Amino acid sequence: MTDIQRVVEEIAEEMRARPDRGEVATYIPELARVDVRQFGLAVIDTEGNVAAAGDCDVPFSIQSVSKVFTLTLALGKAGDRLWKKVGREPSGSAFNSIVQLEYEKGIPRNPFINAGAIAVTDTILSGHQPREALGEIVRFMRFLADDQNVHIDEAVAASEQRTGFRNAALANYMKAYGVLENPVDFTLGVYFHHCAIAMNCRQLAMAGRFLAQRGKHPVTGLSVVPPERARRINAVMLTCGHYDGSGEFAYRVGLPGKSGVGGGILAIAPGKASIAVWAPGLDAAGNSHLGRIALEALTRRLGWSIFGA
Amino acid sequence: MTDIQRVVEEIAEEMRARPDRGEVATYIPELARVDVRQFGLAVIDTEGNVAAAGDCDVPFSIQSVSKVFTLTLALGKAGDRLWKKVGREPSGSAFNSIVQLEYEKGIPRNPFINAGAIAVTDTILSGHQPREALGEIVRFMRFLADDQNVHIDEAVAASEQRTGFRNAALANYMKAYGVLENPVDFTLGVYFHHCAIAMNCRQLAMAGRFLAQRGKHPVTGLSVVPPERARRINAVMLTCGHYDGSGEFAYRVGLPGKSGVGGGILAIAPGKASIAVWAPGLDAAGNSHLGRIALEALTRRLGWSIFGA
Amino acid sequence: MTDIQRVVEEIAEEMRARPDRGEVATYIPELARVDVRQFGLAVIDTEGNVAAAGDCDVPFSIQSVSKVFTLTLALGKAGDRLWKKVGREPSGSAFNSIVQLEYEKGIPRNPFINAGAIAVTDTILSGHQPREALGEIVRFMRFLADDQNVHIDEAVAASEQRTGFRNAALANYMKAYGVLENPVDFTLGVYFHHCAIAMNCRQLAMAGRFLAQRGKHPVTGLSVVPPERARRINAVMLTCGHYDGSGEFAYRVGLPGKSGVGGGILAIAPGKASIAVWAPGLDAAGNSHLGRIALEALTRRLGWSIFGA
Amino acid sequence: MTDIQRVVEEIAEEMRARPDRGEVATYIPELARVDVRQFGLAVIDTEGNVAAAGDCDVPFSIQSVSKVFTLTLALGKAGDRLWKKVGREPSGSAFNSIVQLEYEKGIPRNPFINAGAIAVTDTILSGHQPREALGEIVRFMRFLADDQNVHIDEAVAASEQRTGFRNAALANYMKAYGVLENPVDFTLGVYFHHCAIAMNCRQLAMAGRFLAQRGKHPVTGLSVVPPERARRINAVMLTCGHYDGSGEFAYRVGLPGKSGVGGGILAIAPGKASIAVWAPGLDAAGNSHLGRIALEALTRRLGWSIFGA
Repeated sequence: MTDIQRVVEEIAEEMRARPDRGEVATYIPELARVDVRQFGLAVIDTEGNVAAAGDCDVPFSIQSVSKVFTLTLALGKAGDRLWKKVGREPSGSAFNSIVQLEYEKGIPRNPFINAGAIAVTDTILSGHQPREALGEIVRFMRFLADDQNVHIDEAVAASEQRTGFRNAALANYMKAYGVLENPVDFTLGVYFHHCAIAMNCRQLAMAGRFLAQRGKHPVTGLSVVPPERARRINAVMLTCGHYDGSGEFAYRVGLPGKSGVGGGILAIAPGKASIAVWAPGLDAAGNSHLGRIALEALTRRLGWSIFGA
Repeated sequence: MTDIQRVVEEIAEEMRARPDRGEVATYIPELARVDVRQFGLAVIDTEGNVAAAGDCDVPFSIQSVSKVFTLTLALGKAGDRLWKKVGREPSGSAFNSIVQLEYEKGIPRNPFINAGAIAVTDTILSGHQPREALGEIVRFMRFLADDQNVHIDEAVAASEQRTGFRNAALANYMKAYGVLENPVDFTLGVYFHHCAIAMNCRQLAMAGRFLAQRGKHPVTGLSVVPPERARRINAVMLTCGHYDGSGEFAYRVGLPGKSGVGGGILAIAPGKASIAVWAPGLDAAGNSHLGRIALEALTRRLGWSIFGA
Repeated sequence: MTDIQRVVEEIAEEMRARPDRGEVATYIPELARVDVRQFGLAVIDTEGNVAAAGDCDVPFSIQSVSKVFTLTLALGKAGDRLWKKVGREPSGSAFNSIVQLEYEKGIPRNPFINAGAIAVTDTILSGHQPREALGEIVRFMRFLADDQNVHIDEAVAASEQRTGFRNAALANYMKAYGVLENPVDFTLGVYFHHCAIAMNCRQLAMAGRFLAQRGKHPVTGLSVVPPERARRINAVMLTCGHYDGSGEFAYRVGLPGKSGVGGGILAIAPGKASIAVWAPGLDAAGNSHLGRIALEALTRRLGWSIFGA
Repeated sequence: MTDIQRVVEEIAEEMRARPDRGEVATYIPELARVDVRQFGLAVIDTEGNVAAAGDCDVPFSIQSVSKVFTLTLALGKAGDRLWKKVGREPSGSAFNSIVQLEYEKGIPRNPFINAGAIAVTDTILSGHQPREALGEIVRFMRFLADDQNVHIDEAVAASEQRTGFRNAALANYMKAYGVLENPVDFTLGVYFHHCAIAMNCRQLAMAGRFLAQRGKHPVTGLSVVPPERARRINAVMLTCGHYDGSGEFAYRVGLPGKSGVGGGILAIAPGKASIAVWAPGLDAAGNSHLGRIALEALTRRLGWSIFGA
């Protein structure tokens, strides 16, 4: 058993034993029903060794973790032109704040708050039909995860579409400033659906691996993105990946990471490994409670913080 | 000649040739008079090798770079209690914004915006006389830089004290919420003076070295801070070190860094080196224009980004 | 010729001669095409005497002036319960600001900013079909104006519906907080249509007359609203009727008033008269440029300011 | 006994009987010690008839009510140039908010929030010594009240100076933008002292009388201000006189009014009377709880609302 596998199992064991699990998201029934006692962890290093434990094979709703992948896709399509529609500074605000949009003329602060991710989705859509754009996103996820079983949970997508008034407000607001090109309903439809992608920890860690290895696809070795772009996506994850809890995550965990309201977090140890953790209970800031604690333990024990051994 | 020395000299050469130099700060005469054509760069690796070029021996006003060192001192005194008085999230605002203070009851977002640094200074002061607190800060800087020539530029300090109304507003505002313990004038006096410390690039890179090497003092090898604290200070520098340009600095340079309005930047490559650059012309966000460009070139050529090779 | 008629004619003459006319609203073609040289003024006193001049018979789009009448209707339906959904304080912000909504949990500051008027419309709709609610509003306007020719300009309504993304953002935002009861599209549809009501100055002055005469209908003498409610609607018009230009309007004109982006203003001199002015060119704050100047002249010459003779 | 005297006595009786009295301000000991059971009311009509009841002869700290008189003085000195330093729009914010100052470059929204009143005081000071400016203000108050007993409560002034950090923040902030001309300590000193003026209801109603009678001094008949200026000061009182409770006061009371944290309110019925009420218990917004209720009863019974009988 490798050191990594041992640490992963220890942490899974410790997390299972903890009484503090956070609270599952309740705004849609599909997330509210998830068993809060679950915990999964998967680490894939740059040589392809997998260390996994707990509920690492149970699919969950990746929600905002999908924003890492849509950002990658949109940069592939639009290149640096994307940065005219969305900034790359921490917002200092909650994930769904609209205040910053008003003060900055409809340009969202970064691609990982909801408004920014909607603008990114609009760039991917770019004149196509929602169905085509969504197909492209799912194919990209399957390609990165090297697994054809990645799919969209339609019930989750439908629930979000029914209740997503705040995201509709953000999208309409950006549309008013001309930041969105496509019909608001098209862009929102694609956004709600890619947030509803279901994956397990193994798949998610695999899908993020290119960010840990200079942009290279884990299986084919081909370039998914150039090395500089991989570094830059990691930088945006570090500064903006946890909304107004980004500073805290950097302070405690010390890795680029992106969380989702489904309880998943993808974290990247550049040059070392891609890590996916899942624990459905959330903390007050809407990030996975045990997920963050597990990652803090992992980076400490393995000495993986990007801020020093 | 080492690779690092070669890269440092190349960059100094390139920076000297550039016509775009930014604008020197004009709010006090002492900074406005500085020759904008100067450029200095010093890199000290964890084994003590120094690579330096340009005006690396010319002292400049370190201004907000001093906040890294006062944070270190205050954590040494108050430990994690410090975080009750100041947060560690990016503010998404300018260095001297007061808006966030009103919305968050006088608690500044992080120790690197002005309000936060004033709260940190107040913690160091903690019932002592301003003269004593200031003496302690200067002694700490000399100890870290291993150089007794580090000193306060009294003319700069006096100018700042005469014109620092916005900082006085921030301090009084925090005092109103009980965040400051000492008389406002005491705290501001110490703050204005530690911002007026003059150092050259060699001294500054030396002073920051402990952050690159697990908290260890470069000469004595003793622990300045524990390794975990060094990592955490680096994390706060990465997410908050350049005000509302922190995301941009992370995206382009990929190192923890702290800038000052005097044109200096201290950057840390954990496990590798401490870097000080100085170019007095500023960009629109108040950070050294050529300083940032030089650091971007340096990390790219040496592969030092913490976000991947 | 009465004094009032003389003053009205003088003012119309003076306004016609002025070179500064402001700029017509351009966000929809129907408003952009309106001839900026037009000017109409009508004053109806509490005894029914009409003084009118200029283009006082040309219909124009009343736009936000309609909010006075929808507020009256909604208070009739919901009584003081309405004030749970909408405040009655000046917002200090532009007509379409969304910032305040975020800070105050989706409750708009007052019924005369866009968000507040949408919440008022939602109260009128209250489970009915949009067509029915709209019919009720139009019938109410015809009843108050004592004129069956009041109608909705369908081309204006259709244009607003096509381009009203910012209003859609406001509505969705309030829906997210549960402030709106009806489907967002229903409420917005009614809102866009009642803003597109076309009236001329004579009709509009007539429709507002009940507010000048203790809530009594001008023709039937029946109570439209109790005297206290008429006073209160006047108070809200005074403090909130011109968005972030309300203080200026009170300072210069000294009467409760409500402006619309079509260039119309309804002003009330309590106990004396109802006044409608129309000049399609707007000032920087989106209020009729000559309309405000004309009202300032009128109240000064007639000594009608509520703040003293 | 006149109708007015009867109404005044009835109201004083009713107020005495009410159990809900609000809470006295506690931020300085001098205000915290005031007996919350006191209630005074004085009405002086434009012919000089006085109707008074309750504790109408007990002096209280007029606090922010003084802002009406400093505004009058400053307009006399600077005329419309004053409006370059301070706006006249409702702020939509609390009395001591600093947020608006940051968004609007140090120009306070209106002369009745703290920041605005400090800017007004700075205009009165205008190069003179604080003692002289203060003397001028007190002489003006004695002249208007026709009473040499108006004085400054030095204990209150000293307390405010000791604890007024938030006002110091506002003043320094405006100084940073060049809005204040005089040394911050000078301006604040005068400000804290004029807020500490002590008067009783009779004196205060007398002092405000010129605003009810076209700017004319009640005894001499000379012009204190031109009629137009009296109207305009009334307009600013109506829209801005109760901070973020101004809309509510207009809605319920229907008179221009200015409240102070000592529990006093000055209200003006243009052409009819000047009214001073005092009840030291405050509501949540910092305005006199029973004072506002008494004024609402008074205007309703006498039909004095400026928004209609």
